[in-house]
Amino acid sequence: MRAVVRRNKQLVCDEVPDPTPGQGEVLVKTLACGICGSDLHAVHSFENMLELGARTGEKPRTDPSKDMIFGHEFSAEILDHGPGSAKTLKAGTRVVSMPIAMKPEGYEAIGYSNTYPGGYSERMVLSEAMLLEVPNGLSDIQAAMTEPFAVGEHAVAMSAAGPDTVNLVIGCGPVGLAVIAALKSRGLGPIVAADFSPARRAVAEKMGADVIVDPAKESPHTKWSELGVPRTSSERMAAMMSGQTGKRAIVFECVGVPGVLQNIIESVPVSTQVIVAGVCMETDKIEPFLCINKQIDFRFVLGYTADEFAATLGNIAEGKIDVLPAITDEVGLDDVAAAFVALADPEKQCKVVVRPELRA
Amino acid sequence: MRAVVRRNKQLVCDEVPDPTPGQGEVLVKTLACGICGSDLHAVHSFENMLELGARTGEKPRTDPSKDMIFGHEFSAEILDHGPGSAKTLKAGTRVVSMPIAMKPEGYEAIGYSNTYPGGYSERMVLSEAMLLEVPNGLSDIQAAMTEPFAVGEHAVAMSAAGPDTVNLVIGCGPVGLAVIAALKSRGLGPIVAADFSPARRAVAEKMGADVIVDPAKESPHTKWSELGVPRTSSERMAAMMSGQTGKRAIVFECVGVPGVLQNIIESVPVSTQVIVAGVCMETDKIEPFLCINKQIDFRFVLGYTADEFAATLGNIAEGKIDVLPAITDEVGLDDVAAAFVALADPEKQCKVVVRPELRA
Repeated sequence: MRAVVRRNKQLVCDEVPDPTPGQGEVLVKTLACGICGSDLHAVHSFENMLELGARTGEKPRTDPSKDMIFGHEFSAEILDHGPGSAKTLKAGTRVVSMPIAMKPEGYEAIGYSNTYPGGYSERMVLSEAMLLEVPNGLSDIQAAMTEPFAVGEHAVAMSAAGPDTVNLVIGCGPVGLAVIAALKSRGLGPIVAADFSPARRAVAEKMGADVIVDPAKESPHTKWSELGVPRTSSERMAAMMSGQTGKRAIVFECVGVPGVLQNIIESVPVSTQVIVAGVCMETDKIEPFLCINKQIDFRFVLGYTADEFAATLGNIAEGKIDVLPAITDEVGLDDVAAAFVALADPEKQCKVVVRPELRA
Repeated sequence: MRAVVRRNKQLVCDEVPDPTPGQGEVLVKTLACGICGSDLHAVHSFENMLELGARTGEKPRTDPSKDMIFGHEFSAEILDHGPGSAKTLKAGTRVVSMPIAMKPEGYEAIGYSNTYPGGYSERMVLSEAMLLEVPNGLSDIQAAMTEPFAVGEHAVAMSAAGPDTVNLVIGCGPVGLAVIAALKSRGLGPIVAADFSPARRAVAEKMGADVIVDPAKESPHTKWSELGVPRTSSERMAAMMSGQTGKRAIVFECVGVPGVLQNIIESVPVSTQVIVAGVCMETDKIEPFLCINKQIDFRFVLGYTADEFAATLGNIAEGKIDVLPAITDEVGLDDVAAAFVALADPEKQCKVVVRPELRA
């Protein structure tokens, strides 16, 4: 089959052997697969990511010197069933799945594996137990957006966002947009969205952000007071004494570069909760004294649960989340490498979807 | 009256004018007052603390070039009532109070104020509305420990500590000991306590810690597995598949020096909650990628609420918390400066209580 292979820290479009479904697995045809920011990093830095991952105690299951086929945001159609499968979903059924292959010896990360090709290929092998049928009418591309939008669902689920919070989303790339969508799907607001890119700010507005800020012109932290969040302990105490509790600030950090955390620490009101979803790969500096004085709660979040993944598919199917404003391009396998380059510029691209059936 | 005054970054025992109770205030005689680690810092670094505090948006109310009388962990006896007071508690009643003087223009921090002397003095002025009567039989020193032990009550209240958590307390100074006491008062365990000092470890054991670790001999993080906490996502998933959820790790950081946070980040299991109660005054370095991969929740905590303060007094009165193992000395006003020096060595002193009536 045709696939985009990571080889020698480059992406090459090549012919590779078809994967074969094993026990409890299905062979699927890839319909659509989003390009994730992690993939952009992983082309050059997968070795580094693996090393950092190993420091969490996980045994690396991937050899970065061998071929790997990226792509973990996919929708697919069942072609065939492997041995011992229940065949609950028949061939021809469109499905999505968390990008995890369950094996007796542990799990394999589909899209970052030497043995399980990801969605930048014509065919994949998935675990039957992980499959979710795509509800009627949802397009292949919408279904493929379940994975990246589940990241926002998880970030919001891990937060204290509620009727009495003001929610600031810093960075309106795919992660920040998914957070905005998850907040909006719950009917929560106000949502303040900040990004240096005019294109990204425009998508944030389409996604439902209530206040849009260009950080080059004004800090988003100027908005707290006017949205009813006391900034200091004295202000909070004064609010309480006049019978109000005051709203609480929640910040979703969706940028992931050094310095952003400290800027947040310096700028947020007391009692702020910071949900850190932006993946910063470098060592960062913070001032703990300020964190303590403001009693900041930092939650670092990653991925999603199976329930959150399924809920996100449901939200997209029911129209509670419209993923389409984030989609800026569709490309065939031949154009994936070029799309990776274009994605470096937020004015050019936001979410690009690979459709293996498209031909140059 | 006699008092220990901070003047020119030194402590001097001097005669100062008696304070006068204003509207809604009472004049009290200081019975006992603990020496807090913050006071040890503040002798030399109050200017720096004020500057960092100002960066949280609070207007400084104290001029560090003027005299200040420290001491915010006190018990006292009512001597007289100011104008317009309700006199609910009569002269002669023993009381404790949060170290806050409520003023129409804001609050004044008793013990870090130019106008309200703290407990390193013979007499103080307190807000009548803040007073709590000392329950019968509790000694002056036990009552004075309400404030420092309320810090532990707050840290535990802000945590997810419960029946399914394993709780590690790093640093067994007064803050760490207060955390151990608060966990114990709730019947929570196991409690692992780590400190380089043999004397502090001995107190931690008396306070009720279940596992005592000398970090010079072994990392406290070697204990997670044997206490039932899965260390990695794979281990947690394996536990779930065998019908167990596995316990969750909670770390109480009660040290507050640079490098401790990163050591925790590198060493804890996935999904750990870190309650940061140790006050680190310097910039610190962390690796956010590890925090994200482990989905660490950092909560920086400070102080306590009025409810937590009152609950702590109740716990001490009911014998749920025994504060006495932490007390290592009692001194008069003449010996406060020497006690500050001795407190720098954890083998010599843990919690020293000032009793203004003691004479050299």
